[in-house]
Amino acid sequence: MIDLAILDQHLKAMPPVAAMQIRARAFEGDVLSLEAPLAANVNDKNCAFGGSMASLMTLAGWGWLMLKLREAGIEAEVYVADSDIRYLAPLYDDLNGQARLREDQDWPAILRCLAERKRARVAMLAEMRNDAGVAVATLEARFALKIAGPSPANEDRR
Amino acid sequence: MIDLAILDQHLKAMPPVAAMQIRARAFEGDVLSLEAPLAANVNDKNCAFGGSMASLMTLAGWGWLMLKLREAGIEAEVYVADSDIRYLAPLYDDLNGQARLREDQDWPAILRCLAERKRARVAMLAEMRNDAGVAVATLEARFALKIAGPSPANEDRR
Repeated sequence: MIDLAILDQHLKAMPPVAAMQIRARAFEGDVLSLEAPLAANVNDKNCAFGGSMASLMTLAGWGWLMLKLREAGIEAEVYVADSDIRYLAPLYDDLNGQARLREDQDWPAILRCLAERKRARVAMLAEMRNDAGVAVATLEARFALKIAGPSPANEDRR
Repeated sequence: MIDLAILDQHLKAMPPVAAMQIRARAFEGDVLSLEAPLAANVNDKNCAFGGSMASLMTLAGWGWLMLKLREAGIEAEVYVADSDIRYLAPLYDDLNGQARLREDQDWPAILRCLAERKRARVAMLAEMRNDAGVAVATLEARFALKIAGPSPANEDRR
């Protein structure tokens, strides 16, 4: 089961994320939505700061993976490896972003790879839209998943 | 002349940037250095949050352009258009990042383009190193420069 409260606990525990007031909104149809108030994320032009948009989209991808790994009963660390971000238009509304697995990614196969090799790579997509539904930013990011340290279960599989 | 105090005023005026305590460190050899304390930028693994690293590197590129445009006596808006970020290693030290013009960019030609067309594009590089000098993240970003609104000087050039 997807537990958004756990994600919010993680988000609140990170000082820069708490300052940006980024929080979970919903997990529906294998899409994670995060939100944050514009007031905590404005730049010098009174629209959303690019770094806040990058943070929210990266966290949406990271949070999707963290929640889905928990759902699968797997304890693994999730690290962002790289990302491509496009800023399409200034955003004057509150921040809303959604992340999903990239279409060509096979989640069950990724989980099998992680169980067998203790590490896996996965590509995520995220985007942000304004209140009128217009896309204002997109992110494509690759994440590394790692099962921490050697454990008996993993030693057996080598 | 490069005026770092102006940059710090801009950084402090942006709530998410003030929260991350990102500030100017130096502008030397056409390289802008920014810094921020780790404590304000940790993630759930007690190392630097990726969104803070993305923010600091993006702001270093943006700040470089803002300062160099002021030095040239040009009032223009600077917008980040897109960026590619690579996270190379976790960072357990305070955040330090540097930005410079990408090697193939011709600053005088960019300023001429901006004066003639009121807009220009420019590519910047940024990187972060830990206290041991090891690169922990890189960013390549493209920025849009725009001279705001129609002005008599620009009308004359059309």
